[in-house]
Amino acid sequence: MARVLCITLNPALDLAFNLDALVVGSVNRPNSAQLEAAGKGVNVARVLAGLGHVVTVSGFLGADNEAPFQLAFAKYSLADAFVRVPGETRINAKIAEQSGRITDINGPGMPVDATHLQALINTLDTELASTTPPQAVVLAGSLPPGLSLDDFSKLLKHLNASGVPLWVDTSGPALNVAIATHPAGVKPNETELAEWAGEALETTPTRLRAATRLHHSGVEHALISAGADGVLWVNAQGAWHATPPKVTATNTVCAGDTFVAGILHGLLSGHAPEHTLRFATALSAEAVRHIGVGNPHAADFDSLQQHTRIRRLDDTITEGATL
Amino acid sequence: MARVLCITLNPALDLAFNLDALVVGSVNRPNSAQLEAAGKGVNVARVLAGLGHVVTVSGFLGADNEAPFQLAFAKYSLADAFVRVPGETRINAKIAEQSGRITDINGPGMPVDATHLQALINTLDTELASTTPPQAVVLAGSLPPGLSLDDFSKLLKHLNASGVPLWVDTSGPALNVAIATHPAGVKPNETELAEWAGEALETTPTRLRAATRLHHSGVEHALISAGADGVLWVNAQGAWHATPPKVTATNTVCAGDTFVAGILHGLLSGHAPEHTLRFATALSAEAVRHIGVGNPHAADFDSLQQHTRIRRLDDTITEGATL
Repeated sequence: MARVLCITLNPALDLAFNLDALVVGSVNRPNSAQLEAAGKGVNVARVLAGLGHVVTVSGFLGADNEAPFQLAFAKYSLADAFVRVPGETRINAKIAEQSGRITDINGPGMPVDATHLQALINTLDTELASTTPPQAVVLAGSLPPGLSLDDFSKLLKHLNASGVPLWVDTSGPALNVAIATHPAGVKPNETELAEWAGEALETTPTRLRAATRLHHSGVEHALISAGADGVLWVNAQGAWHATPPKVTATNTVCAGDTFVAGILHGLLSGHAPEHTLRFATALSAEAVRHIGVGNPHAADFDSLQQHTRIRRLDDTITEGATL
Repeated sequence: MARVLCITLNPALDLAFNLDALVVGSVNRPNSAQLEAAGKGVNVARVLAGLGHVVTVSGFLGADNEAPFQLAFAKYSLADAFVRVPGETRINAKIAEQSGRITDINGPGMPVDATHLQALINTLDTELASTTPPQAVVLAGSLPPGLSLDDFSKLLKHLNASGVPLWVDTSGPALNVAIATHPAGVKPNETELAEWAGEALETTPTRLRAATRLHHSGVEHALISAGADGVLWVNAQGAWHATPPKVTATNTVCAGDTFVAGILHGLLSGHAPEHTLRFATALSAEAVRHIGVGNPHAADFDSLQQHTRIRRLDDTITEGATL
C-alpha cells in the first residue's frame, strides 16, 4: 500500500437533493437531502483510502463550517492537513430527479489570499519532507477566487520539483496551465481538453491524436475520458481504449474522481496497464450507478470488470470479453 | 418594549442562490450563494428584535451545524434557548432567477424524539417561569419528523396553560390541530386555511366568513393573508381588510413571518388595530422586495405605509389614501 497526498484547493460541501421531479418556480419537497463533504481531491482520497492506501488530504477549508469535513475525514480515515481559511466552504446543490436528470448549482468558492497560499505551501512542504513522504500527489478541482493562474502554475512547479509524481485533474484555463508544467498525469474529459487541443474531440481518432500530443508535450500519463464512449490512455508503454460496462447512470459527479483513484491504485500497486485500466474503468462505472464514489466491494464488481472492454489501439483485444 | 419568545420546531439553514437563469439538467454557476440561519420563528424573532423587543429564540437545532445560527443570534441580538439535537439542521435551497422566478427545495428536517421534546418543554417552562417572562409566545413553521400531531397538540396546550398569548403560524394538519387548541392568534394564508374551512377561499367574502368562523371557534386574532389581495383580520373589536402597496415582488419567503411580527409589535405596543394592521402590511410589502425579512428603516417605509389601504369591513375607509 502506498502513501498519497490529495489536494483540493476549492472544496465544497455537496448538498444532494433527491426529487421525484423538480418543479421550477415552486416549493419542492425532496425525498431526501444529504450534506456531504466533497471536493474532487477529497473524493479521490476516499477511493484510495478505501483501497487501503494511506492518504493525507490538504488544500483550503473554511473555518466556520469544517464540522462535516472533520466527520468525513474521520469516517474515511483521511489524515487532515487542510489549511483553515476564515469563512465558510461553499455549498454546491445537486438536484437529482427520478428521470436521471441532474441539475448542479456550484457556488463561487471561498476567496484565498497570498498568506493562505504560503500557509498551504508550508504545509505541503512538511508533508513532502516527512520521513514517510507520499509516493504520489493528486491535485484535483477548480481554483478558488483569489488564486491566480500564475499562483497555480508556481504551486504546480513547486510540487513537481519535489520529484513525487503529480497528477492534476482540473479544467478550463487551469488545465492548460497544468499541462504546461508537465505533470505525471492528467485526465480531462473530451470537452475539457478541446480548448487545449484546438479542435473538437468527438471521435476516438481525434481523441487519440490529442492524447498522443498531450503525452508528447511532456505528460507521462495522458488520459481522456468520454463518458459512455470510454477512456483513452497514452503513456510510454502504449495506448489503450477502455469501454465501460453498460450501467444505469444515476449520478456521474464522482465518476472522474473515482477513475483517477483507480488508475493511481493500479500504478502504485505495480499492476499491468490493462489490469489498471480495466479496474479503474469498472470502478468508475460502479460510481455512476449512485451518489458518491465507486465501491470496489460492490457485489457485482467482478462482473463489471469482466464487462469492461480493453483494447490496445492497434485494435487487438488484449483482454476481456468481447461485447 | 416587550419580551417575546419565538419557537421554531423545524428550523432550516437557507441556501440562497442568485442566478441569471436556471438551466435544468446542467451545471449552473450562480452569481452569489449565501447561507443564512432561517426558520419561520427565527424570522419573526429578527423582525421583533429589530423593532426593539427583547426576544428569545427556542426550538430544536442540529448540534453539528449550529455555527451559522450562533452567528445570526449574535448579529440580531436574539437570546439562544434552542435545544441541541444530534445531527444537522436541514438546509433549504432557494434558487432565485433574474426573471423573479423562485424555486424552493425544502428538506424534510431533522428527526426528534420524546427525550428532545421533554428537553424543549423544560427549556420553555424555564423561560415562562422566569422573573421577566415573555408577554407573547410565537410558534412558527412546520413540525420536524418524529413529532406527532398529538405531541404538537400537547405542547400547544401546555404553552396555552401558561396564560401568555400564543401565536401559531403553521400549515396543513398542524394548523387544524393548532386552531383546536384556541391560540391567541393564527395567520394562515387562504390556501392553508381552506382545508380547515372546508371550502376554497378565493374571494374576500369567503375569506371574511372563514376568518369570522375562526375567531368564533376560539382564536382571539384570526388573520388570513392572501398575497397581493391583502389581509383580513377579525378580532373582538371588529374586522378589517388591508390592501398592501404595489411593490415588485422579488422574494415572498419572509413576508408572512414579517407580517406576524408586525402585528405582534402593534399589539404589544398598544397601537390601534388600524395602525397595527397598516404597519404590518406595509412591512410585509417591504419584505417581498428583497431576500430576507422586512426593514422598517427602509427609506420609503413611510410611503409604503401611506399606500397601504385599510378598510373596516362595513366598507368605510377609516384611514389612509384611497388608491
